[in-house]
Amino acid sequence: MDIQQLQGLVNQMTLEEKIAQLLQLTAHFHEGTDNEGQVTGPMEEMGITEPMVTASGSILGLSGAQAVIDVQNMYLSKSPLGIPLLFMADVVHGFKTIFPIPLAIGCSWDMELAEKSAEIAAKESAVSGIHVTFAPMVDLVRDPRWGRVMETTGEDPYLNSLFARAFVRGYQGDHLKDDPDRLAACVKHFAAYGAPEGGRDYNTVNMSERQLREQYLPAYQAALDEGCEMVMASFNTVDGIPASGNEKLMRGILREEWAFDGVLISDWASIREMVAHGAAEDDAEAAYRAIRAGVDIEMMTPCYVNHLPQLIRSGRVDEALVDEAVLRILRLKDKLGLFDNPVRAADPVREQEIIFCEEHRNVSYQLAVKSSVLLKNSGILPLRPDANIALIGPFAQSGDILGWWSCEGNKDDAVQLGDALQKRLSGGKLGIAEGCGLDSITSQQIEAALETARQAEIIVLALGEESAMSGEGGSRTDIRLPQAQLELVKHLKTLGKPMAAVIFNGRPLDLHGIFEEADAVLEAWFPGSEGGAALADILLGNVNPSGRLTMSFPQSVGQVPVYYNHFNTGRPMDPANQEVRYVSKYIDSSNDPLLPFGFGLSYTTFTYSDLTISSPELKAGEALTVQVKVTNTGDREGEETVQLYIRDVTGEVVRPMRELKDFRKLALAPGESGTASFTVTEEQLRYYHSDLSFTSDPGSFQVFVGPNSRDTLEQHFKLNHL
Amino acid sequence: MDIQQLQGLVNQMTLEEKIAQLLQLTAHFHEGTDNEGQVTGPMEEMGITEPMVTASGSILGLSGAQAVIDVQNMYLSKSPLGIPLLFMADVVHGFKTIFPIPLAIGCSWDMELAEKSAEIAAKESAVSGIHVTFAPMVDLVRDPRWGRVMETTGEDPYLNSLFARAFVRGYQGDHLKDDPDRLAACVKHFAAYGAPEGGRDYNTVNMSERQLREQYLPAYQAALDEGCEMVMASFNTVDGIPASGNEKLMRGILREEWAFDGVLISDWASIREMVAHGAAEDDAEAAYRAIRAGVDIEMMTPCYVNHLPQLIRSGRVDEALVDEAVLRILRLKDKLGLFDNPVRAADPVREQEIIFCEEHRNVSYQLAVKSSVLLKNSGILPLRPDANIALIGPFAQSGDILGWWSCEGNKDDAVQLGDALQKRLSGGKLGIAEGCGLDSITSQQIEAALETARQAEIIVLALGEESAMSGEGGSRTDIRLPQAQLELVKHLKTLGKPMAAVIFNGRPLDLHGIFEEADAVLEAWFPGSEGGAALADILLGNVNPSGRLTMSFPQSVGQVPVYYNHFNTGRPMDPANQEVRYVSKYIDSSNDPLLPFGFGLSYTTFTYSDLTISSPELKAGEALTVQVKVTNTGDREGEETVQLYIRDVTGEVVRPMRELKDFRKLALAPGESGTASFTVTEEQLRYYHSDLSFTSDPGSFQVFVGPNSRDTLEQHFKLNHL
Repeated sequence: MDIQQLQGLVNQMTLEEKIAQLLQLTAHFHEGTDNEGQVTGPMEEMGITEPMVTASGSILGLSGAQAVIDVQNMYLSKSPLGIPLLFMADVVHGFKTIFPIPLAIGCSWDMELAEKSAEIAAKESAVSGIHVTFAPMVDLVRDPRWGRVMETTGEDPYLNSLFARAFVRGYQGDHLKDDPDRLAACVKHFAAYGAPEGGRDYNTVNMSERQLREQYLPAYQAALDEGCEMVMASFNTVDGIPASGNEKLMRGILREEWAFDGVLISDWASIREMVAHGAAEDDAEAAYRAIRAGVDIEMMTPCYVNHLPQLIRSGRVDEALVDEAVLRILRLKDKLGLFDNPVRAADPVREQEIIFCEEHRNVSYQLAVKSSVLLKNSGILPLRPDANIALIGPFAQSGDILGWWSCEGNKDDAVQLGDALQKRLSGGKLGIAEGCGLDSITSQQIEAALETARQAEIIVLALGEESAMSGEGGSRTDIRLPQAQLELVKHLKTLGKPMAAVIFNGRPLDLHGIFEEADAVLEAWFPGSEGGAALADILLGNVNPSGRLTMSFPQSVGQVPVYYNHFNTGRPMDPANQEVRYVSKYIDSSNDPLLPFGFGLSYTTFTYSDLTISSPELKAGEALTVQVKVTNTGDREGEETVQLYIRDVTGEVVRPMRELKDFRKLALAPGESGTASFTVTEEQLRYYHSDLSFTSDPGSFQVFVGPNSRDTLEQHFKLNHL
Repeated sequence: MDIQQLQGLVNQMTLEEKIAQLLQLTAHFHEGTDNEGQVTGPMEEMGITEPMVTASGSILGLSGAQAVIDVQNMYLSKSPLGIPLLFMADVVHGFKTIFPIPLAIGCSWDMELAEKSAEIAAKESAVSGIHVTFAPMVDLVRDPRWGRVMETTGEDPYLNSLFARAFVRGYQGDHLKDDPDRLAACVKHFAAYGAPEGGRDYNTVNMSERQLREQYLPAYQAALDEGCEMVMASFNTVDGIPASGNEKLMRGILREEWAFDGVLISDWASIREMVAHGAAEDDAEAAYRAIRAGVDIEMMTPCYVNHLPQLIRSGRVDEALVDEAVLRILRLKDKLGLFDNPVRAADPVREQEIIFCEEHRNVSYQLAVKSSVLLKNSGILPLRPDANIALIGPFAQSGDILGWWSCEGNKDDAVQLGDALQKRLSGGKLGIAEGCGLDSITSQQIEAALETARQAEIIVLALGEESAMSGEGGSRTDIRLPQAQLELVKHLKTLGKPMAAVIFNGRPLDLHGIFEEADAVLEAWFPGSEGGAALADILLGNVNPSGRLTMSFPQSVGQVPVYYNHFNTGRPMDPANQEVRYVSKYIDSSNDPLLPFGFGLSYTTFTYSDLTISSPELKAGEALTVQVKVTNTGDREGEETVQLYIRDVTGEVVRPMRELKDFRKLALAPGESGTASFTVTEEQLRYYHSDLSFTSDPGSFQVFVGPNSRDTLEQHFKLNHL
């Protein structure tokens, strides 16, 4: 339909019908009447009536092709204007085929695989009846205490922006209407949800608008530039006003400045939560602030349905605000082709064929291989396939490797590490012991673990956090491995045997108690459905790890936040002279993270040389070429992620010590050299000034190229505006 | 002199003479020529010439009446216009008579004693030749990792403002010129130095302007309202621009909005540090930004003297900027009466009489008594004077109880706890053992401590941080007591004897390892010259402790920042229902601090009742009376600090859960009741809105009254603007 037809539809709707389009409830509510059709339970408490449910414009969390088809048909049978229902869900890192958590996907630095994972997630959920996913989550994070770091791709605005685009492409494809196997994407959580104070979920966010624009907004904007159809408002306040009622943010930046004309949805109950925030006296005021801010859909609370009618009749709210919201929602339904085909890709037969198929699982496997990060290796990895191995720890045989936000995933289907290792050994022996519970340990467990270890030549520890220790609502003040596991490590350490650790977790951890103790450490994150297979292949050297951290690993929680693109301060510590007191440092800890952004090892080694820059001067409108030679100096083929960082030495406002600007992947055979070549232009050097203008300044710039944000070669140039 | 005369003086000065007035160096530089008058060492490296030193307008850190008189006379003998030198110094919590650290003074909630301490500090330093102190430091703090929390009065803008005023009154008196025993005060560090990221000194500060105004600026403004003569720029950036070159902050807010026309000084080297910050390409640019921002005096770097002449000659800087800076400096010299009496109060004879006199030490004693906070007491305190006591720990006999910023204080003169206890026992016995070093412990020490403890009926632990573990450059990532001391506690705990702990420290600590283990905990902070005496009298019950925390004590560093005046969030945790996942909480820790703002025990008990409010409605221009009855229900006389908090339930921006608005001290005999009465007006309810307007909103307010920010009675009222 064209926009006039859609507008015509809006014109035919009653005010109540229009407002109902703005309501989103879970499937539960659609089932929430008793046999006589009476509204019961929470619906009644929430002041939600059966007609509201019946007329509500979208539904949350229902999937399964037949169920969706049934609900859609029932809905349409009651809909006088034939407006179909929209089905939305949290499909975050896979639907049934679970991919590594987004923080792990971030570590792949692989946009093609990231896109592919989203495409598969879309396909599996589309065939199950879903139209919209509440993804990608692109919140920039710097605090590993926050449980939802697992859902982001990390601490860098540039890399997060690339992933935002890749995920949106993967979910949406090129043309939603013609490609029913795709979903509309909903970028979240706008804005700055990733910066809660103290790393405590939903907590206050505070930063200047300049910092917001420089660090936090780019990835949302990138998603929208890629055509992302929807935006979700965040739970937090942005400079004192909850995002869901923040006119400056939503009308000002999102709608006017960025010209976003898609659907803006609240987060779960976030409109009503303005009352708890103390930004609205009651539900009516919450509705007032949200509709004025431009929030189209209210998720899971009835402020709009209960109060917009009166707000409009009293003249406090212009009905045009509702009309434009409804029009945006109808337009999305039309873009998804729902007016022509209300069930879209929902298909109970095809559902059986597609979901969790081998092709999809293979992509999950590939992504798990690319996402794992080898953090330390004193040479004991890879394992020989004929080795006598003791696999010990609560994750030795565990399906809890899918991570948070894998609602439809089945832990029982996940490939477990023990099984996968066993399958791949040839001539070797595998003993398995649990060693301890997640955070409990008994003397029997210890003794059994010691006995298993004594019979092996090498110990592989499988440790970590359970998935509920991260994810939404999963913030921790102590980011070490659980104490029982550290105790297990101590016991095993007494045997003096070589020890490799595989760590499953949803956040950068304080690795005290394992990093020094183990001879090798492999960061597995939550690797998804094929995790065990990918990790076993890495451990045995069947594949070569290539993941690179996209979030710094702190020395300890007392050092948080620690991130690579920090400022120099006026009193930077001189690493060669650490005893000086009056510099910006701690008296009991390094300023540096344990492991920096971009870090990751391989089973081979790479050396960097011959960093060249095509000119010492860059003129606006021209370009520089930066090149570096990378040589595989080890004895295996391997993939290196060559990273380009730039520092603007002097700015009108202070500039980060280094900022990732580009990267290249080089696959090199042993002894082979390759050249990574980068183009640098003036556009890459722009930043937000104190007046919020986005421009570059002439002057000196440093260029750093290397395997991570710390170990780099250096060049420099001058930018000349003339 | 009147302003015309001073301006006339400026007009007679050469450009170089004027710029020299803007330079401040340490005494070292004034001595920095060799016997032949050649400039040597650091002066040469810094590009400072002997004439610059000779002509520089002020000097830093020199004291001693005769030395000052000599330098001043020498200076004037070379000064063609007879402009005297200004002598400035860091007199922060006492000169020779050292008072408790400011964070401890904060816990006294006693403005009279705070003022008196500043008056005495002024008197002692004035007679030693000092004219200006770099105090008070009024930076709001929320992160105990930061070493300089010891120098502030805490986390509350209202209380910090009261202390800012008290200190300024104490230092400056009513009329500087007529009262040579006073100093000009210099409030610092403008602005928001107390919010460095990660609690790491000098680190980046980032917040919105609204938060800056609401939380951080009030105490500086209060000091200026009280007539504070000087302001010091902070080291940090304020929204990306170093304070020392921040025009918006310095010209915009400080000079124009607040109409401050006193002297603005950089912090130590902070103008040149703009280069390291990356906010100035070189010293010349740093000078340019600083003079434009309105910084009058450059401390310890030569950007002004080396570059302002050329900047002015080239027309880039208007000479008028230098003229106004010089005029402000001359006006301060005149206000201090230096044109009439260049040595002011400096007097080698009187110096001997006044400094560290008994009267002064007595005030230090009183303030130490009022500053100590009883954190826990299961009834073992006070000690009986005939008790058999084991005093154990590195602070049992230590003079390191003055704290950071006690440059002129002498540890050897400090009253040590062991000596003071010994002196006060009558019939009792005191055994003393070191137990461990500050962070080292030997088996001999442990054995000696156990032996001493075995012979006693009660153990008094004297534990803590050494003073260098806080203060400038003293940031820690681990805020527990040093491990060796915790180990000592474990050993002593095995004896099963009653145990009281006295803790010396410069920051709120994570009290794991001592708070549960000890039966009583007395927070001594760094109590100053008479610390041991005050603490002994508290321990023995000769005086009753009454201090109240002005900074929350976190459960652990993983919970930082934790402060009382936080926001509710949209998903506050219901304390009655802590297992709910999707609320703002940690999964492994309480949200609450271990000990809240305002908390402190007494040897008696107080009960609160009958909280009344004179009307359920407050109209603008009128006032409400809030009253509460407080009864001393224990068996000793005691002083209670009755605290009034208000919450604005709904605001245009979110409002804190409670904000301290007033307090009353009530001294009550056993069984006695008293009434604390408060007046609430509309003025107290104003806050910064999103457009930065400072107004109140009509609506609901909650009123809380109690002994601390947590344990309160509650009332409410409505504000009506009509």
